[in-house]
Amino acid sequence: MSEKPTKSALSESESKPGSASVNPESGRRIRNFRKNRFNEKAILDRLLKGNKTALGQAITLIESNQQAHQSKAEFLVEGALPYAQKSVRIGITGVPGVGKSTFIESFGNHLIEKGHKVAVLAVDPSSSVSHGSILGDKTRMEKLVTREHAFIRPSPSGDSLGGVARKTRESILLCEAAGFDVILIETVGVGQSETTVHSMTDFFLLLKLAGAGDELQGIKRGIIEMADGIVINKADGDNIKRARDAKLEFNRALHLYPEKESQWKPKVQLCSGLHGEGISEVWEMISEYHKKVQENGFFEKNRHEQNKFWLFQTINEYLKNRFYQNEQVKIALKEQLELIEQHKTTAFAAAKLLLNIR
Amino acid sequence: MSEKPTKSALSESESKPGSASVNPESGRRIRNFRKNRFNEKAILDRLLKGNKTALGQAITLIESNQQAHQSKAEFLVEGALPYAQKSVRIGITGVPGVGKSTFIESFGNHLIEKGHKVAVLAVDPSSSVSHGSILGDKTRMEKLVTREHAFIRPSPSGDSLGGVARKTRESILLCEAAGFDVILIETVGVGQSETTVHSMTDFFLLLKLAGAGDELQGIKRGIIEMADGIVINKADGDNIKRARDAKLEFNRALHLYPEKESQWKPKVQLCSGLHGEGISEVWEMISEYHKKVQENGFFEKNRHEQNKFWLFQTINEYLKNRFYQNEQVKIALKEQLELIEQHKTTAFAAAKLLLNIR
Repeated sequence: MSEKPTKSALSESESKPGSASVNPESGRRIRNFRKNRFNEKAILDRLLKGNKTALGQAITLIESNQQAHQSKAEFLVEGALPYAQKSVRIGITGVPGVGKSTFIESFGNHLIEKGHKVAVLAVDPSSSVSHGSILGDKTRMEKLVTREHAFIRPSPSGDSLGGVARKTRESILLCEAAGFDVILIETVGVGQSETTVHSMTDFFLLLKLAGAGDELQGIKRGIIEMADGIVINKADGDNIKRARDAKLEFNRALHLYPEKESQWKPKVQLCSGLHGEGISEVWEMISEYHKKVQENGFFEKNRHEQNKFWLFQTINEYLKNRFYQNEQVKIALKEQLELIEQHKTTAFAAAKLLLNIR
Repeated sequence: MSEKPTKSALSESESKPGSASVNPESGRRIRNFRKNRFNEKAILDRLLKGNKTALGQAITLIESNQQAHQSKAEFLVEGALPYAQKSVRIGITGVPGVGKSTFIESFGNHLIEKGHKVAVLAVDPSSSVSHGSILGDKTRMEKLVTREHAFIRPSPSGDSLGGVARKTRESILLCEAAGFDVILIETVGVGQSETTVHSMTDFFLLLKLAGAGDELQGIKRGIIEMADGIVINKADGDNIKRARDAKLEFNRALHLYPEKESQWKPKVQLCSGLHGEGISEVWEMISEYHKKVQENGFFEKNRHEQNKFWLFQTINEYLKNRFYQNEQVKIALKEQLELIEQHKTTAFAAAKLLLNIR
């Protein structure tokens, strides 16, 4: 039994430094550690020197929904901003099973050997359900996780796509400020997540498997249009012929789309993440792209457009949330939707009624 | 010189019934006419009996931005609603020169001969600039305009796409209440206007010309995915072979897209609006589609989804307009966009600052 029966069990969870079971000196050290762990100035200093622990702490603050953490996160992003922007941001998408983790393991190690610092982030709004499946299984990147010049962070979980997107965008800036010059942003492509990743990256890579010959069926709408490169993974062993056929078919399909604003003609390549084959060619393709769009001005223009997009996106999301989360609006909306279904009101009359609530 | 020199010339524009130059009896008739012209109850009664003059007056009220007219317009739409919904709504798009007017002339006359009543509306947000180019040249529909069972109305002009969309949606309901059972909604496809028309129609028709063999280049993104039917127009004379080649290529392209929720497989047909060839086949295709989606429930489901879409669309447009039209927001937004361009703030910090203005 406790010595303090008047206190509830819950209050015990706050550490009592004076409690007899803790040595006073350790207590002081723990308190200082806790106090400083989220000292934003110290974190920023270490982050700008490339300290990965500080980078991890900074991203934790960004991902936190606590009010106190949010102002610290803002301080960090503001402090990181002058040192950010200097990287290649690469979006990587592909259905589960396509070998994204194995590809990133090979690709990341290749980049580090070429002298780059590689950060791997993820946008996966479903991770609250699947408990962070994406990147959660770091064992598939067993070599990459041990590298000094790699930083791997799973998707922020338990949030809407809008929330995940904001957190990932800010995490990109922090990684760049910490000296990471290649940022890989992975998505499994749930809902609108590819579009979200596309709107925060410079190069968009679609990973595919060679299948039964009808490659384009079943690809989500708009994905091919977004891709700057298509990489057919697992092009090894018995798969080689099918992979080559798939490459032909994708090249044909790409030909059907109008020219991109970047003036880049998307390419199709084969690779084997498992055997590390074709990996250096993927980086050559991205470097070629990067050179071209820096020369023709699209790189800067695109990033500026993305920033503007995110400004308006954030504002519009907020305006909608504030409206639809109003309790009166919720009740009236339900009624109006029923009346619309019964053809007893029009969309416009219903909208007018709802807008008059506030 | 006037007998009343104390009055300004402007005030003369209000008719003075007592003025000596007007016969008292005509004056009374003119006053009654003016009073009743926009008497909404009288308009609704006549509209429901199929009177095209009343339908035209009702749409004029919907298109008006005057406050007094808007409440009358609401009365009319509300009164029309129980009699609306009973039509096939067909969206028709194609670049200028593809022969939309000639096609609609042939198609509309064909439908009237089969016993239908045909209304032709347009969504053309550019018409404020081009002064209503679309449908403006009614001479291209010289036979259709004279038919008792045809109603042709150009796009409401001088408005945003959102405004045009609302007005067209409400005009559709009025046309249906007036007994028109086929509604053709034409667009030249400026900006997002195809998406807008797609979201208010049951069947979406893309008109194309046979070109130089590379048919799919230059087609706006997403249009092929929206199309339920592609009609290659001007398939006559020397064009026949090229039109057949184009048909093959479009069929191949359509094969690449995933199955539609409607379970309808889009079809490609040839026609000559000028010679009236292939016109009855277009209507057969649409009838087949209509039958299929009524049976599998997609027709009702889609209309319901469209109504819901328009409810949210209207609310979200209004919320955005109210925010961005605020003078303080306008000034601060300009500043923040410059700071973003100079990488001195993030999209999220800027959004937060702007949202704090209101």
